[in-house]
Amino acid sequence: MVDYSISTRGIVTSEPKDGRPSWSLQDLKVREPKEDELLVRVVASGVCHTDLVISMAPPEMGNYPKVLGHEGSGIVEKVGSKISHAKDGDFVLLSFDYCGKDSCYNCSSETPGYCPEFMMLNIACHPAIFQGQDGSATAGHFFGQSSFANYAIVKGTSALNVTGSVNEEELKLFAPFGCGFQTGAGAVTELANATGKDQIAVFGLGGVGMVALMAAKIRGCRTIIAVDRVQSRLEVAKSVGATHTIDTSGFQNLEEDLARAIKDISPLGTNISIDTTGVLDIVKAGVQALSPRGQMILIGIMYGLTLPVDLSDLLASGKSIRGCIEGNVKPQKFIPQMIQWYREGKLPIEKLIKHYPVDNFEQALGDMHTGATIKPILLW
Amino acid sequence: MVDYSISTRGIVTSEPKDGRPSWSLQDLKVREPKEDELLVRVVASGVCHTDLVISMAPPEMGNYPKVLGHEGSGIVEKVGSKISHAKDGDFVLLSFDYCGKDSCYNCSSETPGYCPEFMMLNIACHPAIFQGQDGSATAGHFFGQSSFANYAIVKGTSALNVTGSVNEEELKLFAPFGCGFQTGAGAVTELANATGKDQIAVFGLGGVGMVALMAAKIRGCRTIIAVDRVQSRLEVAKSVGATHTIDTSGFQNLEEDLARAIKDISPLGTNISIDTTGVLDIVKAGVQALSPRGQMILIGIMYGLTLPVDLSDLLASGKSIRGCIEGNVKPQKFIPQMIQWYREGKLPIEKLIKHYPVDNFEQALGDMHTGATIKPILLW
Repeated sequence: MVDYSISTRGIVTSEPKDGRPSWSLQDLKVREPKEDELLVRVVASGVCHTDLVISMAPPEMGNYPKVLGHEGSGIVEKVGSKISHAKDGDFVLLSFDYCGKDSCYNCSSETPGYCPEFMMLNIACHPAIFQGQDGSATAGHFFGQSSFANYAIVKGTSALNVTGSVNEEELKLFAPFGCGFQTGAGAVTELANATGKDQIAVFGLGGVGMVALMAAKIRGCRTIIAVDRVQSRLEVAKSVGATHTIDTSGFQNLEEDLARAIKDISPLGTNISIDTTGVLDIVKAGVQALSPRGQMILIGIMYGLTLPVDLSDLLASGKSIRGCIEGNVKPQKFIPQMIQWYREGKLPIEKLIKHYPVDNFEQALGDMHTGATIKPILLW
Repeated sequence: MVDYSISTRGIVTSEPKDGRPSWSLQDLKVREPKEDELLVRVVASGVCHTDLVISMAPPEMGNYPKVLGHEGSGIVEKVGSKISHAKDGDFVLLSFDYCGKDSCYNCSSETPGYCPEFMMLNIACHPAIFQGQDGSATAGHFFGQSSFANYAIVKGTSALNVTGSVNEEELKLFAPFGCGFQTGAGAVTELANATGKDQIAVFGLGGVGMVALMAAKIRGCRTIIAVDRVQSRLEVAKSVGATHTIDTSGFQNLEEDLARAIKDISPLGTNISIDTTGVLDIVKAGVQALSPRGQMILIGIMYGLTLPVDLSDLLASGKSIRGCIEGNVKPQKFIPQMIQWYREGKLPIEKLIKHYPVDNFEQALGDMHTGATIKPILLW
């Protein structure tokens, strides 16, 4: 028998209805942490498009009802017997889960985002972490945390101890470091390994795209092109690193017009292009406008889409098309780097963030959808 | 007026006829070297599939008649006024040409194979280097060398001085270092940066593929899968590094059967797969059988083919599909590395090579076509 002894509030995601996600703030119980887990009092949780995408999964794949949330920060309340890297009262930033075995190619290569167990550990959700008021099991462990709850059962692997280096106010700012922000920054610095010689384009200016721009500026890229269809975001982009902007809102033929606009800025093409939109025509334009040995890096979720790749072009110009998960980073190593950049004024994430009391979560979702808020963070 | 004062023999490629290339050994004249060129007495020229592909170019693109050959080695007879890295009597290995400007992104990044002028400098051919017996201009400068001739006008950039480190007999072995061999080795060590943790598959066991296997062994890859449909080549592959072989000759459904055969050996898939065949179904199988963060590297020429890429798969698993030219190497840096590997017994290229007197060039081409010879080298 599972002992659901701890009271909490949480945003419960149920089966989507009429093509819309079903989220509601509920009183729940959560079970005690097991030996490899921590009980964390969540201070803040960033909202990411992945939460929205997953909340629309079909019932047979969705493991409903469940608690999402995967950009959490908080304070440890209790640790399992095998947890040695944190204790009660410690401050933690949360990130994704992975197997961490020495025998795992990617976990042992400091790219645990490609652990073969990634989907099982982060997306599938464990069916009995929370309990609803009617006694029904509610799934958790989303990205090893399910941090859309006041109290979360966090996998040891998902918790980075930042006690002493991060204060409680900063927990409210840094919550998205463990997913969206590391994804944008890592794509530029870890996967693409951008340098001052590079010309880079970033498609889509949500939290991931904006931090990608900041990382490009940190690496001194000589041309940094920000692409979006929302004018206000293009303005923010200029203030965080973009040397050029492209507003796609008036384009008649997205693929051709975008490729031409990039070439107008970088006649030989970009060395690095990063897509966070998941829009096929934008990816096509990006590939078309790559320079020789240029890399098209795909971050935006593209479910069921097929990209026709002209192999003559790919080969003759040595282009690469690359999927990228979690910025190719190991969070335990990369989040401290991002904290340092923030302290040096190089990662002005405060320009992207708006805080919402958790009771206003629906407004946060709405503002993210319209583009009014780049990165909403819920405060518990 | 061009002064064609030097007598030579050369293999002249004319317009293809009836779907077949037209090659003939002829007496020619060659002009004097200009300030940035060398006159080289060619000792040996490897034959590469690229020579065959280019000899089938349509007349309007072919710049016929012309002298091909781009894996040359030889002895310097005369140098232009601006050549300071070689003098008369020096031994040289020849490779591709590139602009070499500091302002060129790829030339200044030690990846000159992606110089934007690559096609113009290496493939287009300069129309007046040689002169036929009837006085007609015959094009040269193919890959900065056109080394299917007894005497070649070589661009300074294409010549690597190996005087003192390489003897005359070795010039006959090392001629293909500047194209096919560096392409195979560099794809493994420079682009993929393979390590002992990697599982690698190589599709197609010509000279490029065989040297890729050797490079994988040098890097200690724990699984090295050699794929071909010619049994004799699979036997050679075992002797140069392959830990496993897959004979595709009996496959009913090339894509599915090959992907399954790879997974039978590497259940999680390969970290690196290298295609030298240019066969679409093989590439599809390769992508399908990649592990998370696996790289599909394309070397084999694929003219006019389109690969449908499932973006959900590419993204969810962080796969890369990458074109690769000349192994991502700078020949001046990488060829000395290959010479060292050869001396250490790690690059047993002698197992791949068969020498032919130039008068038997048609037999060399035929033996390459049937697979009887892996790497034919013509001796002048």
